Amino acid sequence: MTTTINGTRIAQRIRSQVAEEVATAARSGRIPGLATILVGDDPASAVYVAAKRRAIKEAGMRDFHRFLPQHATQDDVAAVVDELAADPQVSGILLQLPLPPQLDADALIDRIPVTKDVDGLTTASAGLLARGERGLRPCTPSGVIELLDAEKVPLKGARVAVVGWGELVGKPLTHLLLRRGATVTVAHEFTTDLAAVTRLADIVVVATGVRGLIGPEHVRPGAVVIDVGIHRTPSGLSGDVRSAELDGIADRITPVPGGVGPMTIAMLMVNTLRAAQWGAEREAVVA
Amino acid sequence: MTTTINGTRIAQRIRSQVAEEVATAARSGRIPGLATILVGDDPASAVYVAAKRRAIKEAGMRDFHRFLPQHATQDDVAAVVDELAADPQVSGILLQLPLPPQLDADALIDRIPVTKDVDGLTTASAGLLARGERGLRPCTPSGVIELLDAEKVPLKGARVAVVGWGELVGKPLTHLLLRRGATVTVAHEFTTDLAAVTRLADIVVVATGVRGLIGPEHVRPGAVVIDVGIHRTPSGLSGDVRSAELDGIADRITPVPGGVGPMTIAMLMVNTLRAAQWGAEREAVVA
Repeated sequence: MTTTINGTRIAQRIRSQVAEEVATAARSGRIPGLATILVGDDPASAVYVAAKRRAIKEAGMRDFHRFLPQHATQDDVAAVVDELAADPQVSGILLQLPLPPQLDADALIDRIPVTKDVDGLTTASAGLLARGERGLRPCTPSGVIELLDAEKVPLKGARVAVVGWGELVGKPLTHLLLRRGATVTVAHEFTTDLAAVTRLADIVVVATGVRGLIGPEHVRPGAVVIDVGIHRTPSGLSGDVRSAELDGIADRITPVPGGVGPMTIAMLMVNTLRAAQWGAEREAVVA
Repeated sequence: MTTTINGTRIAQRIRSQVAEEVATAARSGRIPGLATILVGDDPASAVYVAAKRRAIKEAGMRDFHRFLPQHATQDDVAAVVDELAADPQVSGILLQLPLPPQLDADALIDRIPVTKDVDGLTTASAGLLARGERGLRPCTPSGVIELLDAEKVPLKGARVAVVGWGELVGKPLTHLLLRRGATVTVAHEFTTDLAAVTRLADIVVVATGVRGLIGPEHVRPGAVVIDVGIHRTPSGLSGDVRSAELDGIADRITPVPGGVGPMTIAMLMVNTLRAAQWGAEREAVVA
């Protein structure tokens, strides 16, 4: 019997905890706030930003939002980032990706102060993660760890295959897993005999952007499979894993949708709360 | 037949190339310079710093050296770092570790500007490496890659076991190997059945600080074994690998001494040269 991991429920529990902490902070007049920046007319980005803003408001946090037109210049966006960076009411800044092609996304992301980097995507945050120092971690890989913890899947000494070495998931997740004592194998497009690699793993995390890449030939009986992929198809959303074919093989598996996706938003709430706490500590030190 | 990789010879070739490039740069009046900072009376540190200064002078570069006493304060060392950071003649700054216990080494390292971070150990450099951006990489893992390249060991698609997840070697080396297309498994003290992990690898890199940890039970016939460990024993230096026992099993193996060790100094020379070039480019942009 393969169990489907209910990411929606786990994410909801985390969001309720965040809302409680926000309520406590609000009683002392400190309300965390997230600033989302949306540039241009990408419809999917608009949907994602709307969902994040809804979640922020549900958690009782302040919603700051900036929209810039499709033809915005590098200086236009930089000015908005700098203004939000300087605003003490803004705990976290999220620059929705992708940006229009005339913009240098990396340079804009790196303008976000490390204490407000709720997406954990600045070079500075990557350095803090690599060094194991205090910092905000990217939401999706943090969500994967929270999911595994909620499911009580042991990480210390576990063999984990991370399939995909990307900035958003594979790289940061590898650091997070190793910090928890997992033995991690990173596989990617140049890996020869992927199935031989993933079949050794107790936990397989897939974040490749290749729809249906992983099937029964890749998974050993009793493994836990985490599917980070998300693809829009005529018949609805699907992931990087052919989940139906893993029934009876995997011990547990995340669905798409309803698996890792909701966790990403939940961890954005957690990061905004942590950013607010971090910012308050720094102000206390300066004052 | 197991071949012993001659790290000393490969390192010497790299150092000669650096000396040639330095001579060319010197003809236009730009001579790279390395500032070494030694704090206190650790005899091993004194030996290492002396070797680095000798190599710098041999390469035709400028040798700036600062010694601070064992009881130096955080502010004392910080002031020296800041002065060297501001000095345009200093291309690179190396703060010899370990520091006396009253000093916060991480905070002092992070004062080194990223363009002068020839040891590649600042949080900022770790971020640049993690993001795959331009930056100076730690010398020992860069040396391992150079060694494998010099030996024409293919990395793309190769299965590599990195044993040890430390700041100096394991973490940065994992990024460097993945960038080259290797499939990397990271093992460490919490790995259960280390031999099962390492026996799958085409290349085993060992950087654990545990003398003689790796023996014939860990290595599959024909593998390449890179021993980063270095231990002083009554009968001389030895590594993390029981090399003699691998004779006839490994295809190639690095000796201790004369393997990775000389490469570390060679890569420090390369980094100092690159830092000088990077600094010159930045000055040109500012001017």
